[in-house]
Amino acid sequence: MSGLRVAVAGATGAVGREMLSILAERNFPAAEVVPLASERSEGKSISYAGGEIRVKRLGHDSFEGVDLALFSAGAARSLEFAPSAVKAGAVVVDNSSAYRMDPEVPLVVPEVNAGVLASHKGIIANPNCSTIQMVVVLKPIHERVGIRRVVVSTYQAVSGAGQSAVDELRGHVEAAGSAPVSAAGSASASGGPSGAGEAAQLIAFNCLPQIDVFLDEGDTKEERKMVNETRKILGVPDLPVSATCVRVPVYNAHSESVNVETERPLSPGEARELLAAAAGIEVIDDPARLAYPTALFASGHDPVYVGRIRRDSSVTNALNIWIVSDNLRKGAALNAVQIAETLIEMNLLRAA
Amino acid sequence: MSGLRVAVAGATGAVGREMLSILAERNFPAAEVVPLASERSEGKSISYAGGEIRVKRLGHDSFEGVDLALFSAGAARSLEFAPSAVKAGAVVVDNSSAYRMDPEVPLVVPEVNAGVLASHKGIIANPNCSTIQMVVVLKPIHERVGIRRVVVSTYQAVSGAGQSAVDELRGHVEAAGSAPVSAAGSASASGGPSGAGEAAQLIAFNCLPQIDVFLDEGDTKEERKMVNETRKILGVPDLPVSATCVRVPVYNAHSESVNVETERPLSPGEARELLAAAAGIEVIDDPARLAYPTALFASGHDPVYVGRIRRDSSVTNALNIWIVSDNLRKGAALNAVQIAETLIEMNLLRAA
Repeated sequence: MSGLRVAVAGATGAVGREMLSILAERNFPAAEVVPLASERSEGKSISYAGGEIRVKRLGHDSFEGVDLALFSAGAARSLEFAPSAVKAGAVVVDNSSAYRMDPEVPLVVPEVNAGVLASHKGIIANPNCSTIQMVVVLKPIHERVGIRRVVVSTYQAVSGAGQSAVDELRGHVEAAGSAPVSAAGSASASGGPSGAGEAAQLIAFNCLPQIDVFLDEGDTKEERKMVNETRKILGVPDLPVSATCVRVPVYNAHSESVNVETERPLSPGEARELLAAAAGIEVIDDPARLAYPTALFASGHDPVYVGRIRRDSSVTNALNIWIVSDNLRKGAALNAVQIAETLIEMNLLRAA
Repeated sequence: MSGLRVAVAGATGAVGREMLSILAERNFPAAEVVPLASERSEGKSISYAGGEIRVKRLGHDSFEGVDLALFSAGAARSLEFAPSAVKAGAVVVDNSSAYRMDPEVPLVVPEVNAGVLASHKGIIANPNCSTIQMVVVLKPIHERVGIRRVVVSTYQAVSGAGQSAVDELRGHVEAAGSAPVSAAGSASASGGPSGAGEAAQLIAFNCLPQIDVFLDEGDTKEERKMVNETRKILGVPDLPVSATCVRVPVYNAHSESVNVETERPLSPGEARELLAAAAGIEVIDDPARLAYPTALFASGHDPVYVGRIRRDSSVTNALNIWIVSDNLRKGAALNAVQIAETLIEMNLLRAA
């Protein structure tokens, strides 16, 4: 055997394409890659490793001889087809929210909790993008000084909502671009800005404090995901976390303003040193040089970038931290591939 | 006498123009308005109340017979010329940071602390934009249940950095618009995105976690202003406040994600009722209708808009609140004019 047979379900989506590109660029030990998508995309060609491969229709019979199935086709398709993949003998790494909070399913960020992979029963869940970049940073802090409470506000890119949201932002910007934009007034996009209370508010030149649907008690599903997934990944079921998730007119890479209260003191200098030494993190934090990470800088790169580490003196033992990462890469496709690589290292996936 | 003689120093800037327009639209009792600016703008015409008035050069002799001088020409000019205005008998309302933390100078948001105007000695300071919209909301909460701690992350529009920043965003967007923008890559603006650590980072399709200069301990001046001004306006010198200030690619109106811990419980429903009844606030908060305020909606309007009021269960007695307001209006020009109106009501400025 010269390699694994890898299926990518949802291969034509924004994350699916990123999965293909990351498998190739990391020389993942794949003998064959099978891109799967809906009937609509069947037969289309898609780029992989410098060539073209043909998209097959995702079905219950798609997984014969498949060793690894990366899913990013939405929760409904994961619920429908992932069990078939497992039945056919594949290990599934699922990027949807379908199985994340299932107590039987490991929810994994390799730098944080690779150990729980040992107990997998065929399906491993890839966490939400906004959660992944935060827990990579919280983990070393929690191990060193214990985390007491987290208050996070996010600045999330449109690519997290898929290619249609990217096209929507571009369309709004183009529409506004041809019309005068007044500083004192609103951007005169086609049709003018939607009023508050309308379902479809413009994202161009705006910030929308809603990602995913609203749940009871006024939280959005994205906010609830950040709270629950962070607790599960860090293994602290009652960790106090408050999240406010906001969509901003950025094409790619999420930023997060994170306030962390800790049990024991950790100076900004110690935190910088701790995080710089941690896996998957790059610290860019030099106010004198105006150095801090931003979304435009992080987009297209692998690390979780951290900057603006400073003491919050409004409470005992607290830090403010600015965290930026590419939500399609570490926030989705890269983390999924890293899970697969870790499975191989741990001999939990047939060695290549 | 049929009205006041009003000087506007810095009349050609973004806030100065807004001051002129607000004086006119509110029928401020001005018999004459004198626009003042630097030598560069001397003699230019500027719109006021449907007509045109001629800009005069700001000098020590500009204030003969002036009753009220609204300053928005930067801290250096306020320090240089405001004392001359006071000497000439004018009351100064200064929008710069020059006098805000001077213990002799009232720092005023009329809905919050109009009472301190009584002790003014000629100069009244207008707070920073990001502070004003927050304290309008914090005040009624503090009076009702006592505030224990505030953690705020801001989403600030470029108009807060003046007309040049507005032009810069528009220029970046236009440059990026003609080039392909990839979701997985960076916006290909002219010259490409600056790397982290360079002084001038692109604001288009990006979020910059820096507003104003860096101070010691890693805070920016904008963040320090939010902390110190909030304490002074609320009259709680040691109020625990943590601020992270971020510039976003929005033309006008600031948004804020505010986490408020209180001494006594306040349910989201009670908070909605309390804030809806408070002066200067409009509550837009109905998740079922996807109703919440946004910058595009708030721009050009007077109120401080509040939405997404929900319990934060990560600590005893806390709420998350989303606050949006037009930074050129309530955050600057409108608040300055409201201070002047309040001075008239309190008989602290010669009645019109």
